[in-house]
Amino acid sequence: MEPSVVLAKLPKLLDLNADNITENVHLINSKNPDVRSKYIMERLVHHLHEFARDTRLSTDEWMAGIQFLTETGKICDDERQEMVLLSDTLGLSLLVDSIDHPKPDGSTEGTVLGPFHTHNLPEKANGDKIMHNDPDGTPVLVVCTVKDVNEQPIKGVRIEIWETDSTGSYDVQRTDHSVPDGRCFMISDHNGAFWFKGVVPVSYPIPHDGPVGKMLKMLSRHPWRPAHLHFILSRPGYDRLITALYLKGDTYETSDAVFGVKSSLLIDLSQADESLAKKYDVKVGTKVIKYDFVLVSEQESLELRAKNSKEALELLGHKVKIINGLPVPDID
Amino acid sequence: MEPSVVLAKLPKLLDLNADNITENVHLINSKNPDVRSKYIMERLVHHLHEFARDTRLSTDEWMAGIQFLTETGKICDDERQEMVLLSDTLGLSLLVDSIDHPKPDGSTEGTVLGPFHTHNLPEKANGDKIMHNDPDGTPVLVVCTVKDVNEQPIKGVRIEIWETDSTGSYDVQRTDHSVPDGRCFMISDHNGAFWFKGVVPVSYPIPHDGPVGKMLKMLSRHPWRPAHLHFILSRPGYDRLITALYLKGDTYETSDAVFGVKSSLLIDLSQADESLAKKYDVKVGTKVIKYDFVLVSEQESLELRAKNSKEALELLGHKVKIINGLPVPDID
Repeated sequence: MEPSVVLAKLPKLLDLNADNITENVHLINSKNPDVRSKYIMERLVHHLHEFARDTRLSTDEWMAGIQFLTETGKICDDERQEMVLLSDTLGLSLLVDSIDHPKPDGSTEGTVLGPFHTHNLPEKANGDKIMHNDPDGTPVLVVCTVKDVNEQPIKGVRIEIWETDSTGSYDVQRTDHSVPDGRCFMISDHNGAFWFKGVVPVSYPIPHDGPVGKMLKMLSRHPWRPAHLHFILSRPGYDRLITALYLKGDTYETSDAVFGVKSSLLIDLSQADESLAKKYDVKVGTKVIKYDFVLVSEQESLELRAKNSKEALELLGHKVKIINGLPVPDID
Repeated sequence: MEPSVVLAKLPKLLDLNADNITENVHLINSKNPDVRSKYIMERLVHHLHEFARDTRLSTDEWMAGIQFLTETGKICDDERQEMVLLSDTLGLSLLVDSIDHPKPDGSTEGTVLGPFHTHNLPEKANGDKIMHNDPDGTPVLVVCTVKDVNEQPIKGVRIEIWETDSTGSYDVQRTDHSVPDGRCFMISDHNGAFWFKGVVPVSYPIPHDGPVGKMLKMLSRHPWRPAHLHFILSRPGYDRLITALYLKGDTYETSDAVFGVKSSLLIDLSQADESLAKKYDVKVGTKVIKYDFVLVSEQESLELRAKNSKEALELLGHKVKIINGLPVPDID
């Protein structure tokens, strides 16, 4: 098409100011042929502009924000994700997980992914050690099952696991790290069971030598997370579960810097008796964590998500329809 | 203080979900001793969470956003500021300028700074050439004055100027660039006058080989800006004016990708007659741009900003007081 033909279809963008900029950005963005991303961008521009209006944001403050986000992006690499950390510490990650992965009663709750998940994972078999480079770590035997909401075991579930060593560091945070350690994936057996030998996780501060650390300091907030083990459980047909187990009684149990702790994910450390020690080939008295994960079917999750979305948005006064499980405006 | 003493003052963060996460993030952030940044963070978290709620943002969409912002930060360097470009293309930059630099009638309007402003500028004297490495550029004589709202000339104003060459590139975009070109600063003379020789600017696409370019493509938007010259005028006692002059009749006059064009900033290209040619040492027929800038005093700008802020926020239902010219909640 000729430029003049294309331009004729655009709104006339001239003399924009605080009173008319928002509607004009909406207008020029409304040519987006994808209804979902059009809706997302409309809401993004709305809230971004309302934020500037509510605060009467100054040019200096705007520039400080630009620089903060730029630094947050620049400090990211293959093994550090500061933008996720920012989302975590502002409560956005927990909110999105809660919206996108609603859990019916009786199923295992999800929580924040955190910035230390990686895709380079060794496969381990049941009973394997997952931590090698941590001589001071207190050994722990972790014994789990995976079931559906009808208490039927699910075999063939891929379980990703990652945890800190006894100093509170993930492998990717250690300068001496070359191969993945304290992380792996396993597959649940025909009884839906999986078990491994790790170390007792400890509470640790999230990385606070970067922009997010500066922000927490400004907010007079501490950077600590209570001790936990991360899990992702996935199998086609089931809603992918991103979760973690937290050690009950941790100093930071009710002040997690990233808002992840849930009562149903708090676990006690027990000790292996003779029978357990024999069965899992560990010493009597070894620390033990037991947990039974319950997955929701993809279909049930999709329906619950769509139902929640429609109800929540109608409460907010938005008339929506659900396409591919996600809401878009319902325009007559 | 003992950790237990510090922690006792915190809200109990446990079992957070879509219904209660926002108030708890507000609570933990409310220990910030600085009232202004506390207010900004409260509004930021509010709108960030409302955005996720309005859209029922999915984990995949959240991750796409995280990656987009990460890439936007990572592509930035000393000479490319993609985060500013993002703000510009979403209309935020224009909005913030409009809020923070209100212009009373009769004064020159501001507009977007854009991502190509640099701090490394040669000083030029009146009549100097500011563009050297552009043999194909059409020469233009730019003759300006700076006055206050009472039409009194202002001497000693620092004027920063930057423009594209005839290919639509700023110096920092050229691979062969080593020293600043097409940019400088000058000081207005005792008559408030300044003049220089540049090239006629041309319309150009903003950098669209990065994340912002992808976003514009998704939005079916073109990346073009109409031809313009950038100016920053500053002198203690006056509100710093970030502005630009746009060539009237440009193809993109009413569809600027960053929403910057204002009728009062549109200028005609004229031609030097014999008298002008003689006075400014250019050939007869040389293209000429004339403009008279009008600056507002810092005091007047501050008062207008405070008045606008109070009115706008009361209209939004926020009870505020103004501290250092910026609003914070007025809590009895």
